[in-house]
Amino acid sequence: MRPTSPALDALIGEKISVLDQGFVRVIDYMGNDSSVVQAARVSYGAGTKTTSDDRGLIRYLMRHRHTSCFEMCSIKMHVRLPMFVARQWVRHRTASLNEISARYSVLDAEHYVPEQFRAQSRTNKQGSGDPLANIEQFHATGEYRDAMGRAGLSYRMLLDQGVAREQARMVLPASTYTEWYWKADLHNLLHFLALRSDPLAQAEIREYALVIGQVVSLWVPLVWEAFEDYRLGTVSLSKRGRELVQMLLSGMDVHEGMSGMSPGEWREFEREWLL
Amino acid sequence: MRPTSPALDALIGEKISVLDQGFVRVIDYMGNDSSVVQAARVSYGAGTKTTSDDRGLIRYLMRHRHTSCFEMCSIKMHVRLPMFVARQWVRHRTASLNEISARYSVLDAEHYVPEQFRAQSRTNKQGSGDPLANIEQFHATGEYRDAMGRAGLSYRMLLDQGVAREQARMVLPASTYTEWYWKADLHNLLHFLALRSDPLAQAEIREYALVIGQVVSLWVPLVWEAFEDYRLGTVSLSKRGRELVQMLLSGMDVHEGMSGMSPGEWREFEREWLL
Amino acid sequence: MRPTSPALDALIGEKISVLDQGFVRVIDYMGNDSSVVQAARVSYGAGTKTTSDDRGLIRYLMRHRHTSCFEMCSIKMHVRLPMFVARQWVRHRTASLNEISARYSVLDAEHYVPEQFRAQSRTNKQGSGDPLANIEQFHATGEYRDAMGRAGLSYRMLLDQGVAREQARMVLPASTYTEWYWKADLHNLLHFLALRSDPLAQAEIREYALVIGQVVSLWVPLVWEAFEDYRLGTVSLSKRGRELVQMLLSGMDVHEGMSGMSPGEWREFEREWLL
Amino acid sequence: MRPTSPALDALIGEKISVLDQGFVRVIDYMGNDSSVVQAARVSYGAGTKTTSDDRGLIRYLMRHRHTSCFEMCSIKMHVRLPMFVARQWVRHRTASLNEISARYSVLDAEHYVPEQFRAQSRTNKQGSGDPLANIEQFHATGEYRDAMGRAGLSYRMLLDQGVAREQARMVLPASTYTEWYWKADLHNLLHFLALRSDPLAQAEIREYALVIGQVVSLWVPLVWEAFEDYRLGTVSLSKRGRELVQMLLSGMDVHEGMSGMSPGEWREFEREWLL
Repeated sequence: MRPTSPALDALIGEKISVLDQGFVRVIDYMGNDSSVVQAARVSYGAGTKTTSDDRGLIRYLMRHRHTSCFEMCSIKMHVRLPMFVARQWVRHRTASLNEISARYSVLDAEHYVPEQFRAQSRTNKQGSGDPLANIEQFHATGEYRDAMGRAGLSYRMLLDQGVAREQARMVLPASTYTEWYWKADLHNLLHFLALRSDPLAQAEIREYALVIGQVVSLWVPLVWEAFEDYRLGTVSLSKRGRELVQMLLSGMDVHEGMSGMSPGEWREFEREWLL
Repeated sequence: MRPTSPALDALIGEKISVLDQGFVRVIDYMGNDSSVVQAARVSYGAGTKTTSDDRGLIRYLMRHRHTSCFEMCSIKMHVRLPMFVARQWVRHRTASLNEISARYSVLDAEHYVPEQFRAQSRTNKQGSGDPLANIEQFHATGEYRDAMGRAGLSYRMLLDQGVAREQARMVLPASTYTEWYWKADLHNLLHFLALRSDPLAQAEIREYALVIGQVVSLWVPLVWEAFEDYRLGTVSLSKRGRELVQMLLSGMDVHEGMSGMSPGEWREFEREWLL
Repeated sequence: MRPTSPALDALIGEKISVLDQGFVRVIDYMGNDSSVVQAARVSYGAGTKTTSDDRGLIRYLMRHRHTSCFEMCSIKMHVRLPMFVARQWVRHRTASLNEISARYSVLDAEHYVPEQFRAQSRTNKQGSGDPLANIEQFHATGEYRDAMGRAGLSYRMLLDQGVAREQARMVLPASTYTEWYWKADLHNLLHFLALRSDPLAQAEIREYALVIGQVVSLWVPLVWEAFEDYRLGTVSLSKRGRELVQMLLSGMDVHEGMSGMSPGEWREFEREWLL
Repeated sequence: MRPTSPALDALIGEKISVLDQGFVRVIDYMGNDSSVVQAARVSYGAGTKTTSDDRGLIRYLMRHRHTSCFEMCSIKMHVRLPMFVARQWVRHRTASLNEISARYSVLDAEHYVPEQFRAQSRTNKQGSGDPLANIEQFHATGEYRDAMGRAGLSYRMLLDQGVAREQARMVLPASTYTEWYWKADLHNLLHFLALRSDPLAQAEIREYALVIGQVVSLWVPLVWEAFEDYRLGTVSLSKRGRELVQMLLSGMDVHEGMSGMSPGEWREFEREWLL
C-alpha cells in the first residue's frame, strides 16, 4: 500500500562503511519519486500520468525551487561518526536526532584515525591541501596514535576512580566515534548534501555526504538526477557576472580592472568563464 | 523490512469524513511504536526487549518529555478542510504542507455549512456556547446559505469576465473547502492534538483533531495510551497551586482570599480541587 | 549601547501604506550591518576593521551563502494585509506571528478592492497578465463591490442573531483585511523577499515585499546592496546551461534540438542568453 | 523609540563568569515585558493599560501557554563554554548560532577543570551524585590535569608538523573551551532554561542556565516571575496521579499496590504527595 523504493528496500539494515570505523545504515524511509509528484499534483492539479511526465515535473520543481514537494519524503539513518563531524552535522537544524548518551553509557572510546594527514591549505584559510610529506606524516601519525591511546586510558582511569560518566567523557577527544539515529526530509537532506559534498567542506564529512548521496540516488533516482543537473553541477552568476558574460557573448573584452569585482570574486569568475 | 502498523495499513487511502464535506485520508507513514523504543535505545543503551518493557519505556519517555524519540515517526495525510480551519492549522509550523493553489486551479467553491450555529460564549471571549435558539438558528442558517450561494456566483461571474483566478478567489469566504497534503512527525502531531482537541479549541478544528487522534491510536497504540495518561488527562499545578493542595492534604482550609491567585486562576483551581 | 540603525529609527511607528488599506509599520529591530560582521568575526577570527572591509566581508558572506550570520539581526513589523495575502505569507514558517483573532474580536470587515482586475495569464497557469478591457473591468468591479458589501452585511447579520464570532467570520471573504505582528530574522526575511518580490509572485504580496525591501535597504544598507547583487539580480545556470554558455563563448552554435532541455527550460535559456 | 530594559542595558558587554574560564555576555536584545503584552493585545484586542494589568496578562499568557507572544522578544549572547556543554546546548534547534571555527583559527586549547569530580549516581543512570572521596578525587584530578596538558601538547605538535587545523583539532578533548554568539527568542530561551536548570541536567550546563536565568529576570521581570510560578515551580499530575490526589483529598488511603503506577512513577508521586 505504501509507496516503496525496491532499490532502497534491498539496502535497509546494511552497514555502509565510511572512514575507518564509521558507517551509514538506512533504518526506514517514507515516500519515493512518485510521492514528490503526487504532492505537486495536489498543489497544481492533475496532469499527465506517464513516467516521462513524472521526470519532467520533478525537474521543473527542482529548477524552480518548489521545495515543499521534496519535504514529503523522509529517511532515517543510523550513523556512526566522529564527534567533530557530528558537530558540523548538527548545524543542520531541520532534522530529528537521537544520539548515544555518554552520560548514560560508557563509550567504546574508539577513535577515527585518518589514512593520512593533510597540510594546511595555502589558499583556503579553513581548508586543507596535499598530504603531508613522509617525514611529517610519520611524526604526526605517531603523535596522533599516542594521543588516542592516552586519551582512552585517561577515560577508563577516571571511570575506575568512580568519576561519573558525564564527567569522565570530558577527556574524550573530538575524534571519538559516536552514533545516532538521524531523520531528515528529502528537501533538507538535499540541502545538507549540497553543502557537505562541496569541495570546500572538510574531507571527513564529505565522505558521509557522498555515501548518503549514493543512497539517495537509489531511493529517488529522478529526484537525484534533477538535483545533479540543477543544484550540484550548476553555477550562479551575480548581477555583475551576468553582465560580464553577456559582454563576452557580444564579443567584448572583459578583464579584472573593469569588472567591479573583488579579487576573490574575479578569481572565481575567471576560472569559470575565461580559462 | 520497514516497521509497519497493520491497523494503519488497513486504513491507507480511506477517506474518513469530518464536518459536512471534509475528510482525513492517510497517505503514508513511517515507523510504529517500536521505532520510538528503538530510538530511545540508541540514546540510553540496550535494555530489556519484551513488549511490556516497550510499553514501560514509552510511558517513561512520555512522562519525562523525552520528545526527540517521538520525532522518529511521521505520518502524511490528505485533508479537506474549510479555509478558516486551515488558517488555525498552519500556526503549527513544524510540518510540511502542499495545498491546492487557487492561483493555479479553479476551486469547486464548496462551503462548510454547520449543522447548527452556536451562540457567543458568555464566559470565554473567544469561544462559543449553546446552539442558538430556533428562531435565530433559522434566520442565521438562511442568511448563511444565501451568503454561500452568492459568493459562489460572484466567484464564477468574475472568472467568466476573464478575471485571473488569483484575483477571483478574493471573494471566496473563509468557509470554502480547500485541500492539502500535510506531513508531521509524531511529536509535533501530538502537540497539535493536545492543543486542538482541547475544549477551548474551536469545535470545527476539534473534529479534525478527534479523528486524527483515532488514527494515531491505531497507528501507535502504546504511544497513544501514554499520551492520554500523561498529556491529555493531566493537570498542571502552579507553584502556588501545589502549595494549596499540600495544605488541603494536611487538613488546612483554603479559600480565595488567601490563595494569592487571580480570579481566573482561582476559578480553575476551585473547579479542579474543591468542588 | 545596542547597535542602532538611525535611518530605521526614524521610521519606527510610521505606517507605510500598501494596497488600498493595508500598511507595514516597523515596531522594533535588533542589529545592523555591523552585527552581521561581528557574528562572522566570531566564526572566522578578527579581521580588518574599516568600513570598506565590512562591506567586503558582507558581500563575501552573501556570495558564499554563509546564512547564519544574517540570522543575527531581527525585525518586527505590524502589518495590515488581506487574508489571501496572509495565507501565502505564512508559508514562510521560520518567523513569529501574533494575529488579531476573529474568535475574540469583531473584525472591521474592511476589504481590499484592487485598482484594477487582471486577466488570467496565457503563459503562466498561476499568474495574471494585462488588466481586463474596460467593459469586463467595469462588470468585474461592480460585481466585486457588491460581493464585498453583501459579505459585510451577512457578517453583521449573523452577529446580530447572536452567532458566535468564531462562526460568523466564516462568511468573510479572502479579501478581508487582517492584522498581525510579524517578526523574522534577516536571513529568513531576505529569503521571503527573494520569493515574494519575484515577478511570478502575485502582484498583491509583491507590493508588501517591495515596501519591506525598502525598509531593509534603510536598515542594513550593505546587506541590501549585497542581496541585490548576489541574489535578486542573479541567474543560475544548470549543469547543461553552463555547458551551453561555454559552447557559445567558444563560438559554437547552440539551438533547442541539441540542448537536451525541456521546452520550458529552453525558453528560459533562450530569453537570457540568445535574444 | 525602541522598547528598552534599563536593567539589561546596564549589563550589555559585561562578562559574567561561569565555570572556571567560561562566561556569558549579553550583546543585544529586542523587546521587554511590554512587548509581550503588546503582541497579546494584537491578538486579543485592547484591554486595560495599567502596570498591574500587564502583570496579570503576562501571567495569564504563561499559565495558558500562549507561547507565541513570548517569541516577540529576542536576546543575543556571547558565550564561552566547554565543547561537551556546547554539544548538549545545540540540541535546542530553534536558535541562531555563530561559533568560532577550529578549521579557520588555531584554538587557545584551554580546558575546563572541574572544582571537583562527582561520583556516578546510584539512582540516576545518567547523573552524578556526591563528590568523590579525597583519595579518588586526588587521583582523578591528577590524571585529568595530565590528560589536558598532553592533549594541548599533541594539538600544538600536530600544528607544528604542518597538519591542517581542521585535522589537528581532532585531538582536542570535549573539555576544550569554545565560543559562540547565540540568539534565541524568549519563548525558546525559557524552554531551554526549564530543561537545563532542572536538577537532572548536568551540573555544568546548569550553571549556564542559572546565570542566564538571572539575566532574564533583569530583562523581563514580569515574564520571569510568571515563569517561576507557572513553569519552574510546578508539578504535573498524570491522569492517574490526579485521581489519586482526589482520593487523598476525600480521605481515602492510597498505596503503591493500587496505584497502577510503575515503580518509578510511584516513587515520584510518593515523594511529592505522601512524604
